[in-house]
Amino acid sequence: MLVVMRSSATDCEVRAVCEQVEKLNLNAHLMRAASRTLIAVTGAKGALQALAFEQLAGVDEIVLVNKPYQLASREANPAGTTITVPGTTAVFGSPELVIMAGPCAVESKEQTFAIAERVAAQGAQILRGGAFKPRTSPYSFQGLGLEGLKILAEARERYGLAIVTEALDHEMVPVVEEYADIVQIGSRNMQNFSLLKRAGRARKPVLLKRGMSATLEEFLTAAEYILSEGNSQVILCERGVRTFNDHSRNTLDLNLIPMVKRLSHLPIIVDPSHGTGNSASVTPLARAAVAAGCDGLIVEVHNDPAHALSDGDQSLNFAQFDEMMQQLRRIAPALDRRVPQPQPATVGTIAQ
Amino acid sequence: MLVVMRSSATDCEVRAVCEQVEKLNLNAHLMRAASRTLIAVTGAKGALQALAFEQLAGVDEIVLVNKPYQLASREANPAGTTITVPGTTAVFGSPELVIMAGPCAVESKEQTFAIAERVAAQGAQILRGGAFKPRTSPYSFQGLGLEGLKILAEARERYGLAIVTEALDHEMVPVVEEYADIVQIGSRNMQNFSLLKRAGRARKPVLLKRGMSATLEEFLTAAEYILSEGNSQVILCERGVRTFNDHSRNTLDLNLIPMVKRLSHLPIIVDPSHGTGNSASVTPLARAAVAAGCDGLIVEVHNDPAHALSDGDQSLNFAQFDEMMQQLRRIAPALDRRVPQPQPATVGTIAQ
Amino acid sequence: MLVVMRSSATDCEVRAVCEQVEKLNLNAHLMRAASRTLIAVTGAKGALQALAFEQLAGVDEIVLVNKPYQLASREANPAGTTITVPGTTAVFGSPELVIMAGPCAVESKEQTFAIAERVAAQGAQILRGGAFKPRTSPYSFQGLGLEGLKILAEARERYGLAIVTEALDHEMVPVVEEYADIVQIGSRNMQNFSLLKRAGRARKPVLLKRGMSATLEEFLTAAEYILSEGNSQVILCERGVRTFNDHSRNTLDLNLIPMVKRLSHLPIIVDPSHGTGNSASVTPLARAAVAAGCDGLIVEVHNDPAHALSDGDQSLNFAQFDEMMQQLRRIAPALDRRVPQPQPATVGTIAQ
Amino acid sequence: MLVVMRSSATDCEVRAVCEQVEKLNLNAHLMRAASRTLIAVTGAKGALQALAFEQLAGVDEIVLVNKPYQLASREANPAGTTITVPGTTAVFGSPELVIMAGPCAVESKEQTFAIAERVAAQGAQILRGGAFKPRTSPYSFQGLGLEGLKILAEARERYGLAIVTEALDHEMVPVVEEYADIVQIGSRNMQNFSLLKRAGRARKPVLLKRGMSATLEEFLTAAEYILSEGNSQVILCERGVRTFNDHSRNTLDLNLIPMVKRLSHLPIIVDPSHGTGNSASVTPLARAAVAAGCDGLIVEVHNDPAHALSDGDQSLNFAQFDEMMQQLRRIAPALDRRVPQPQPATVGTIAQ
Repeated sequence: MLVVMRSSATDCEVRAVCEQVEKLNLNAHLMRAASRTLIAVTGAKGALQALAFEQLAGVDEIVLVNKPYQLASREANPAGTTITVPGTTAVFGSPELVIMAGPCAVESKEQTFAIAERVAAQGAQILRGGAFKPRTSPYSFQGLGLEGLKILAEARERYGLAIVTEALDHEMVPVVEEYADIVQIGSRNMQNFSLLKRAGRARKPVLLKRGMSATLEEFLTAAEYILSEGNSQVILCERGVRTFNDHSRNTLDLNLIPMVKRLSHLPIIVDPSHGTGNSASVTPLARAAVAAGCDGLIVEVHNDPAHALSDGDQSLNFAQFDEMMQQLRRIAPALDRRVPQPQPATVGTIAQ
Repeated sequence: MLVVMRSSATDCEVRAVCEQVEKLNLNAHLMRAASRTLIAVTGAKGALQALAFEQLAGVDEIVLVNKPYQLASREANPAGTTITVPGTTAVFGSPELVIMAGPCAVESKEQTFAIAERVAAQGAQILRGGAFKPRTSPYSFQGLGLEGLKILAEARERYGLAIVTEALDHEMVPVVEEYADIVQIGSRNMQNFSLLKRAGRARKPVLLKRGMSATLEEFLTAAEYILSEGNSQVILCERGVRTFNDHSRNTLDLNLIPMVKRLSHLPIIVDPSHGTGNSASVTPLARAAVAAGCDGLIVEVHNDPAHALSDGDQSLNFAQFDEMMQQLRRIAPALDRRVPQPQPATVGTIAQ
Repeated sequence: MLVVMRSSATDCEVRAVCEQVEKLNLNAHLMRAASRTLIAVTGAKGALQALAFEQLAGVDEIVLVNKPYQLASREANPAGTTITVPGTTAVFGSPELVIMAGPCAVESKEQTFAIAERVAAQGAQILRGGAFKPRTSPYSFQGLGLEGLKILAEARERYGLAIVTEALDHEMVPVVEEYADIVQIGSRNMQNFSLLKRAGRARKPVLLKRGMSATLEEFLTAAEYILSEGNSQVILCERGVRTFNDHSRNTLDLNLIPMVKRLSHLPIIVDPSHGTGNSASVTPLARAAVAAGCDGLIVEVHNDPAHALSDGDQSLNFAQFDEMMQQLRRIAPALDRRVPQPQPATVGTIAQ
Repeated sequence: MLVVMRSSATDCEVRAVCEQVEKLNLNAHLMRAASRTLIAVTGAKGALQALAFEQLAGVDEIVLVNKPYQLASREANPAGTTITVPGTTAVFGSPELVIMAGPCAVESKEQTFAIAERVAAQGAQILRGGAFKPRTSPYSFQGLGLEGLKILAEARERYGLAIVTEALDHEMVPVVEEYADIVQIGSRNMQNFSLLKRAGRARKPVLLKRGMSATLEEFLTAAEYILSEGNSQVILCERGVRTFNDHSRNTLDLNLIPMVKRLSHLPIIVDPSHGTGNSASVTPLARAAVAAGCDGLIVEVHNDPAHALSDGDQSLNFAQFDEMMQQLRRIAPALDRRVPQPQPATVGTIAQ
């Protein structure tokens, strides 16, 4: 059961609802979104208990949700959620697509700056780059760690890009939150509940990547873990699932997009780099993702893919990234979306 | 090894190559495409044997193909194959997308004509419809059979549409060939080798649907069965694969499209109806398929989906089909493709 | 709805039931099993129509089946079906396991006889071997065809083994039926409905292999196609399904066995050769299959796996086959099953 | 590259090897197993560098491993690893199977003691039970937490069982280590690298469950994370993978067992409860797992499955558990294994 408060509801009225919840031996999960406060009430049996809330001051409506996720359900925000990234023009869920681009791993300041400059020039609003890398083998390059975060933060200042980077566990959330603008939770951690809960207490948006074999319900319920701790800013990311196919690293599941739009109010972006695993397929699938209705893309770009420390096969080089952006600029208007404008001049100035 | 003949090569020169093949105890598979003749030579060991063919009259070049499929490989026709459907403007592999639309099953003349009229009016060049239906249960509606074929043939005359319909086994190929313009091989039959071989001797193009868990190599090698019997007109069709996902009937694998374009010269279309399994997802995924680079679409359309004898959930109604076509008309130009023009006047005239 | 006739029912009584079915505009599918006749009545709406049959002479009981398969359902024969192979001691569904062994493909008389002698000596009751081979590529060895069937038939006479071999399409069923004792339908053809229906009119048992990504319901409904044409002798075969796993050719799905036993009365055997794809794993998985409750095994054995014309990697050599049989002899009694006794003397005599 | 020290090697000799590693700018990962010390040296290029170690004092041999995992590879301990659980007779990797049984979640002292008594009476050496539960939904029962751990510890004292329970994140490892005998890492956390590394510094054995769509290489490389931090006591657990199948919760992949035995020295057990998802299939698949060669089982048992707070469908009741144990007692000897003896008397005494 979702108790939707009026946008004019006072803290006091919200508190009164929570006290009513306690009195009935139920549990309240409070989420403050931009425009209003939602209270997911769990433990309730049947619709009868809705009566106990309908007449309370400040309550707008009671929505009965018959799913394991409530705050993530479309009913919780039928208009769809938009998530603004301060310091940029990026608004997830708006007509303008959000383009997140950058290397798989932060390798050095030179590499990061070179890539940041190029993706900013092409209009990307957000720089992606791993400082802490989840690697299948303990002997692979594990990322630069804190030093990587600092390089990313410098790149932000210099190129006017926001930063998204991954937190590998709940203890890492505070430091990632300090340096980055968006906290990423990777596929392998989609059901790391300690991490999800901690991210639910972060004050930054969270980019949640779908697990390699997660159902849609599991994906939305993982988002619910974050929302139920109070953080309403969750961006979903489809990045391909594991199948028998051997012509691509993963099977990008674009069927998910219209279903997410129907079942949830959260914005969803697509990662065609992991979703395909090879650079030549990234642009066609990026186009397809936009055509399917996604709200943005996260793409791996490298100044020298052949020598990248990880995932070189699937990284676009600069010319490929330029080409992708040009193609997206052509296709977006056909969907009443737009791609952010190139910023060559600005970046030139900053870079001096 | 592929022996590519000059377009000017005479029958006599082709025969001489085949005799050389026999002399070396190898096997020749002849395929006459629009512009030239190809001879796949199998059983050869190593590149040395290429020398035995290079100097023969009429031989343009020898291509060494290191794959289980040869005639289907990109090397066999680097420019890409186009397949023309006589009596229509449809050319698979051309800038104009081919739109195939119609009911899952032919249920009656009234139903078929009503649907044919509408899809023709919207510009579809080809009417799809099952006369013989492959049904999971022996007790489900199995199609109207020959009567269904006749209804389709009548619809062709009346609405200027070409016909694609399925042959369930090799014995059925002649009758389907007689009434239809394109012979469809369904997913369940993708490795029915008797059917593939017989379709390879048909004089009509073949629409080959990917098996539910077929790899790309298996798919192209199934096409090779058809090509190696001499029929060069094979259209591939991606229709979703089977995965753990439960938010869609199948998982549409658009990653396949750029890979097919790289590895093969054959045109590829997409079936978003089976690929998603629900009508609300068909249009977003049809857009995505076009954006990924497919050469056409095959879509289920019904005048009354709620009462369709099969697959009603995934059939578009007329308004949804109109909407899909309008959206495709917007998106295609961004890919330097176009969607066939609506034909309201013509159809009106015919229908009188 | 299943109409179960008494074992004493006369042909005339059976006919009367079928006439009643027609009168009600329903459809009857007659299946004569060893002990009694079953009539699947389809098209019926609701339980009310059962009344029209209950009082007819010779009717034992009416079973309402709420599944897309009826004759294949457990309800149709709660005691479980046994299938006897004439000329051998093999009874599928009996306490004695049925062991089917032999080469992937019949390559020559020498090869076939050598293998037949060895597997017979170890107690196998049935010789497997492909005469017509379904091969992914048109350029791979396609089997010896009719000559292969004749070699198998000779091996039967010489070594007292029954023969199982595959029919690739419905036209091939008569010749396979003539030479073999069991007609095999391969995985790629599990939903080749023309073939299933023709096999339903064969007078020999049918071995139906599960499709590579078939659900249990699809598998049992494919069996229903055979049963609904009158042939009650269907043996199911689990041979692994296609997954993301890369440590085995397929993923053997032993979970299927207890579920088949619960939902169907048909015997089920397991193919650990295709189910694993490598000879070292065959014996452990053969043991596991028996422990899970299967009724028999079909195993690839070759006198010289390294030079087999197909599937050499997964074929057991003679020593490995002997070892497997010895291990099965130890494990079967723990499940109240037994493995057929070795026949060294007999075979020795015949072979002279 | 693996440097295998003699069992007689001194700490000083081990240190000298590590210093040599550093001198060469390589990395050393030290693992002390029961009988000897292994040093995985990573970063090495080519076999040449092996020469730098061969002559050092205390070095037994150098093994070149060409895989992303080294300490987990068979080469690191060709004889196979055994893991002893102090205070019990359980030895993973020995001829006696290890039986771990208990509820999905610890719900109360009464429930836990009732179950512990029964499983101990049947010979189980280890009690399983979740104190911290990883639940798909944030609103599901999350376990009793620390109180659950204390109940488990009491049950250990009372019934002579060792305890295995899950740690959900790296911070939870110390407390789990304090109360339990084996630290479990769940499927959803198989690639939670922070948790793996922390478990690698625990002084207790670790039970590592396979991820829902993990390849064998990813599974062994996850184990390598634990081993490379120094903890040599890793027990692998196959619990089913996610596929299109809908007749079971997961598809139990017994093909994994012989492959693990070939590629790794670590013991492997099977979880037929999650692997099937329904209690009626648990016993047949438990038998199959033993027949395939596993070293033990972990099974969910509940005194009242119909009212279990989680996973009731797949929990065995007492009668079913007794029956499973009896069947395992019959089958194990056929594999030269044995099942621990029932302990009715002992438990009776303790329980008074």
